[in-house]
Amino acid sequence: MRTLVPFAAVNPKTRLDSVLTGDERAAFARAMLRSVCATLQQAGSEPTVLSTAALAATALPADTSVVVDDRPLTTAVNDQLTTDTPTLIMMADLPLATPESIRRLIAASDDAGTDADIAIAPGLGGGTNALVVRAPAFRVDYHGASYLDHRAAAADLGATVETVDSRRLATDIDEPSDLAEVLIHGDGPAREWLIDAGFDLDRSDGRVGVRRR
Amino acid sequence: MRTLVPFAAVNPKTRLDSVLTGDERAAFARAMLRSVCATLQQAGSEPTVLSTAALAATALPADTSVVVDDRPLTTAVNDQLTTDTPTLIMMADLPLATPESIRRLIAASDDAGTDADIAIAPGLGGGTNALVVRAPAFRVDYHGASYLDHRAAAADLGATVETVDSRRLATDIDEPSDLAEVLIHGDGPAREWLIDAGFDLDRSDGRVGVRRR
Repeated sequence: MRTLVPFAAVNPKTRLDSVLTGDERAAFARAMLRSVCATLQQAGSEPTVLSTAALAATALPADTSVVVDDRPLTTAVNDQLTTDTPTLIMMADLPLATPESIRRLIAASDDAGTDADIAIAPGLGGGTNALVVRAPAFRVDYHGASYLDHRAAAADLGATVETVDSRRLATDIDEPSDLAEVLIHGDGPAREWLIDAGFDLDRSDGRVGVRRR
Repeated sequence: MRTLVPFAAVNPKTRLDSVLTGDERAAFARAMLRSVCATLQQAGSEPTVLSTAALAATALPADTSVVVDDRPLTTAVNDQLTTDTPTLIMMADLPLATPESIRRLIAASDDAGTDADIAIAPGLGGGTNALVVRAPAFRVDYHGASYLDHRAAAADLGATVETVDSRRLATDIDEPSDLAEVLIHGDGPAREWLIDAGFDLDRSDGRVGVRRR
């Protein structure tokens, strides 16, 4: 199976701009990318980063290849799907992912009992955080409620769909409140980056947030 | 194993007050409670609702018992834990839960390989949405970042902890944006209640929300 990790290299994670500068957002996005690539490797996958711009080799774990395509996400991914090879597409902002959660997603697509053409790890808010595509005619559409759109597209093709029930794959890191999830449940480069940048859990209120020294 | 479902019967779900009246919040909370109790029964559990006030029999599936205790959540639950019987405590606002997700939580606590004293299904934001307690001395504390507190309490007792990686058990329904999760991923009484009340997915923006007719 091929594994693709789409990555927005330029001005990433704009919804974090109230707590991180532009340079910090770029650095934190790369820390999450390293985390995701390393976790995929631990799960036995060989990730290829599909990046909107060239990346410094230091931004990636060893043995990670990069394809540069500056077109929009949906277009760039679909251009990679014009093959019969089963493909795993995993977003780069999932630092809570574990090898076990990735194995569960892959198993959802090829368990003897299910044998699904499409396996989806839904994100919170109707998104698609990770996806296994075994139907060569399937194309992605990441705009808006992509989880529902991907189910509908699979149904149009007569393709079977399984979903994986994973909090770790559902938690994409987009907003300041999401940073608490990384501090609580994460490990690896993204959590280390936040701690080095002075972030800490704020437990003074009823709900847990983050604060910065 | 005993199964407890704590339920705030009076003025529940106050963070939904921008989209639901007081009577509607009471009705929707009861629809979620019915959903959770029915799902527990499908998973082979016999839920007891630990309610802050008496409940109409129509609010519950058949064969669901009720214990009334009007004290705060943590106090009422801990009063039920003064026994050696293993206990599953599941919040009443988890209408995305499935029998499979509940079975995975229970399995995390009694798989031959793990045999954990405490199994936790973390909520988003540091909460504890469901919990299996097999350590008789363990007590809950639901205030604030209860996931971290429960881990610390288990460590103090020398009790082993497993977590279950479930988006469905992580998604508690507290705020208007959470209602989209019920419409996208739910089935059963809570989703039906929202649809009957005129709620629909709002896909006009980049992120999916809800609107009401």
